[in-house]
Amino acid sequence: MSHPHPELGAPPPLPKNGVRVVALGGLGEVGRNMTVLEFDGRLLVVDCGVLFPDDHPGVDLILPDFDYLRDRLDDIEAIVLTHGHEDHIGAVPYLLRLKPDIPLIGSTLTLALIEAKLKEHRITPYTMGVKEGGREKLGPFDCEFVAVNHSIPDALAVFVRTPGGTLLITGDFKMDQLPLDGRITDLRAFARLGEEGVDLFLTDSTNAEVPGFTTPEKDITPAIERVFAKAERRIIVACFASHVHRVQQILNAAEAHGRKVAMVGRSMVRNMGIAADLGYLKIPDGILVDAKKLGDLRDDQVVLICTGSQGEPMAALSRMANRDHQIDVGHGDTVLMASSLIPGNENAIYRVINGLMRLGANVVHKGNALVHVSGHASAGELLYCYNIVKPRNVMPIHGEWRHLVANRDLAVATGVPERNVLLAEDGVVVDLVDGQASITGVVPCGYVYVDGSLVGATDETMLKDRRILRDEGFVTIIVVRDSSTGKIVAGPDIRTRGFAEDTDVFDKVVPKIEDALEEARRKGVNDSHQLQQVIRRAVGGFVGGKLRRRPMIIPIVIDA
Amino acid sequence: MSHPHPELGAPPPLPKNGVRVVALGGLGEVGRNMTVLEFDGRLLVVDCGVLFPDDHPGVDLILPDFDYLRDRLDDIEAIVLTHGHEDHIGAVPYLLRLKPDIPLIGSTLTLALIEAKLKEHRITPYTMGVKEGGREKLGPFDCEFVAVNHSIPDALAVFVRTPGGTLLITGDFKMDQLPLDGRITDLRAFARLGEEGVDLFLTDSTNAEVPGFTTPEKDITPAIERVFAKAERRIIVACFASHVHRVQQILNAAEAHGRKVAMVGRSMVRNMGIAADLGYLKIPDGILVDAKKLGDLRDDQVVLICTGSQGEPMAALSRMANRDHQIDVGHGDTVLMASSLIPGNENAIYRVINGLMRLGANVVHKGNALVHVSGHASAGELLYCYNIVKPRNVMPIHGEWRHLVANRDLAVATGVPERNVLLAEDGVVVDLVDGQASITGVVPCGYVYVDGSLVGATDETMLKDRRILRDEGFVTIIVVRDSSTGKIVAGPDIRTRGFAEDTDVFDKVVPKIEDALEEARRKGVNDSHQLQQVIRRAVGGFVGGKLRRRPMIIPIVIDA
Repeated sequence: MSHPHPELGAPPPLPKNGVRVVALGGLGEVGRNMTVLEFDGRLLVVDCGVLFPDDHPGVDLILPDFDYLRDRLDDIEAIVLTHGHEDHIGAVPYLLRLKPDIPLIGSTLTLALIEAKLKEHRITPYTMGVKEGGREKLGPFDCEFVAVNHSIPDALAVFVRTPGGTLLITGDFKMDQLPLDGRITDLRAFARLGEEGVDLFLTDSTNAEVPGFTTPEKDITPAIERVFAKAERRIIVACFASHVHRVQQILNAAEAHGRKVAMVGRSMVRNMGIAADLGYLKIPDGILVDAKKLGDLRDDQVVLICTGSQGEPMAALSRMANRDHQIDVGHGDTVLMASSLIPGNENAIYRVINGLMRLGANVVHKGNALVHVSGHASAGELLYCYNIVKPRNVMPIHGEWRHLVANRDLAVATGVPERNVLLAEDGVVVDLVDGQASITGVVPCGYVYVDGSLVGATDETMLKDRRILRDEGFVTIIVVRDSSTGKIVAGPDIRTRGFAEDTDVFDKVVPKIEDALEEARRKGVNDSHQLQQVIRRAVGGFVGGKLRRRPMIIPIVIDA
Repeated sequence: MSHPHPELGAPPPLPKNGVRVVALGGLGEVGRNMTVLEFDGRLLVVDCGVLFPDDHPGVDLILPDFDYLRDRLDDIEAIVLTHGHEDHIGAVPYLLRLKPDIPLIGSTLTLALIEAKLKEHRITPYTMGVKEGGREKLGPFDCEFVAVNHSIPDALAVFVRTPGGTLLITGDFKMDQLPLDGRITDLRAFARLGEEGVDLFLTDSTNAEVPGFTTPEKDITPAIERVFAKAERRIIVACFASHVHRVQQILNAAEAHGRKVAMVGRSMVRNMGIAADLGYLKIPDGILVDAKKLGDLRDDQVVLICTGSQGEPMAALSRMANRDHQIDVGHGDTVLMASSLIPGNENAIYRVINGLMRLGANVVHKGNALVHVSGHASAGELLYCYNIVKPRNVMPIHGEWRHLVANRDLAVATGVPERNVLLAEDGVVVDLVDGQASITGVVPCGYVYVDGSLVGATDETMLKDRRILRDEGFVTIIVVRDSSTGKIVAGPDIRTRGFAEDTDVFDKVVPKIEDALEEARRKGVNDSHQLQQVIRRAVGGFVGGKLRRRPMIIPIVIDA
């Protein structure tokens, strides 16, 4: 991964009145958002999320790199969580494992979601609930919280006042002016803070490339209504397990059409339960039924809300498409995939759509109906923000490089001087001193892989090995030597998996190995490592030449 | 993969006056198109292409399943090739390997492209060149060829007259009314054939889900013009190595702006060379330069046309993004990705876009400019075809299930009775008898994998192994027994790759293996396979329980 600032080295010491900002995730990728502020030796962490792998074989999650904090854990005042999405809270358990008493600051729903996640990790955190309009002093960081509208309720932006300067961090946001829950992004607060003076504005870059304005959530309602009006039999809705407002729209439609609703999928049931308990989701009385009891109802009285909108193989919807679920999807059923299509998931999603259609279902998705809108501000909304806030400096966050660049262009277009818009990436150090922000250095910041229960044990070498195994399989060649005489007493014994071979190819290579070993013996080569190399060359030359393949070759010489 | 017609068995014998149609590829997937017509014991193959893998580890290509033809190779009259794209000609070498003298029928450019490909396989085919308006009798199949417009020149539709009925096969097509080469899809011929009577219409389903009309190729010209007008330094254009018209647009723009052009990438150079030799590509005199000589020119006099538009790691554009190419992309260069984004390739393509932008290039792609249009008819064009041809029966081809269904819906909307529109998949047998087409059975039809130089050696078991290796790696445990006494004389020797482990985890498992083997010995278990199972259980229980991982476990007991 080429570094954008190869000329940078370690940053100089932070001046006493300077504010340092380092992203440990979220810049250069969409995921694992984590920003660390520093003032006067104290640290404030904003968000701590995970990234889901796309080409990392066998990896479950990718975390931000906590190395930067490892010797400074006691300097951390708190972790501020802007909202409850996985790419903002998913890595909190791994950070708290290092120091469990770091307080978590967030809104009611956000804290409820992270507490549920931490319970699974057997961690009980210190928390402080905050609301929009609230203000908390966390060491030298005087934090004021502002409501923002997003695709999960109770999301916050945070304005941080320090003696060295002020920062406004949007978190993830959009600006639906008639949102379903009435909770708009508080632009008047942005205006007020802009009047006071925002030295550094950190803004969500996800949709900066998209011209215009993000479609309002309520524009989806007619499409949902049409689905419910036309559906002959069951309605199965797949959406994100955190999308409370989408589920609300489904519940409302179900009630209007006299249908009962069952939720399927552990995370869906859990998150919607939390949202309902806290009042963010209004469930009409008696509308929910147990998924197991659906058989008692007529098909046209049934709605299922389930996971699997991204074609995840183990989730409910995929299993329905593969006829591997108690719900037997068939002709006349309608499947509504009310979610986005995250880049990278296209093939998995289309596999599910094709599978459901083959079973006879009518599938409605964002490719053929307006059934999902983004949770992020487009270029139009971002321009409003830059013009209202009129920040001194801007640091685009939350996006791949192309998104950060597009966001930078918007800021510059509204009049922010180009040198005041910092294009940083993970690990790049931005210092705000006397009202001027600039890039002053870079700290090491890599990918940390979670694999099963192991954190950090998988590295690039391991992934490289796995890619070879995936593409080519392996061949092991075992030779047993008599430890006293050095003579070969068993083998070459050849085992292979994942390696396509003619049945007789190994008959052909055995004599080559024997010849090579005999020649080595004559030359007096005795060291087992060198003999392993002899075997490797004999086999590699053979499979590479004859079969044009490059399996992993593992020669093993055992002394018995 | 669930079968759409589980009730079907082997088809009955074909009536003497019946025409049988079996797709061996291309239905249910976008790729490996191959349709086999049969009349009176003779076969006509239409197209023979490859499918590129998306979740098939280590597989290079996926072929149609030739099993249906294996005992009937002598019955094949010819292979008609509608156009020169890989998903229509890529599998021809593998079919000709079975019987090299099957004649290939196609247009001039199509034959030139397949001949070049066959040369690499050291096969010299029998060919017969045909043109639009031409007519050839191939056994009982009286074939008339019709010009169609597509994203490669010289594409043909084929009208097949047999005593049992007539079939019109569109091949891949769209209906640009002002195409850059002036060669429109011959709708008047479609009308004439419709008047004569089309018993079965096989139509390209790729864009059947897309409402309206496919954007014309010439609408791209202004966007290309803007790129050339604004570009400060070099212009690098990535597009498909077969897109002659796109390359023509680039050459025209380069000439207008006084720039020289170099082509980079083996397939690009080869295909454009063939197209130029045959007159399909008009190269302005003196405009081409060798890529190695670009250094002699000023940056603003340079255009490169290269491969890699799909983010392919080994192709030129990716390597430029990774600074692994002689062309050093930098600030002020413009990269124009003038191609589609094939589903599944998003992450690879965005990786390349981000990489190029980090190097300072301005990247123009279909996400931010009108620089590519599809090669396939949308719903609007397909409706024209159904209304002009007025076929008796329709068989949607060339698409995933959702595309075939959408195409079916269009045919039915224009008045074709629903029972006359056959939704088939690969292997499903459609018989046309006395003007009525119907599904009569199914023949085995699977995926055939090409892996290096091996065809068909990789199967689902192998892929399953590779997926386990990719996700979890493997552990081999080797134990050497004295063949006379049965005592263990070496091992357990544990080797692992791709498996994330704590450094001491194997120290912990060795005693467990030894204990398990000792207990087996006491119970009198001697058979090496049973001992391998004992080892497998001991290791599997340990890594599954402690590490929550499931590597491939390969226990090996060697008798020395």
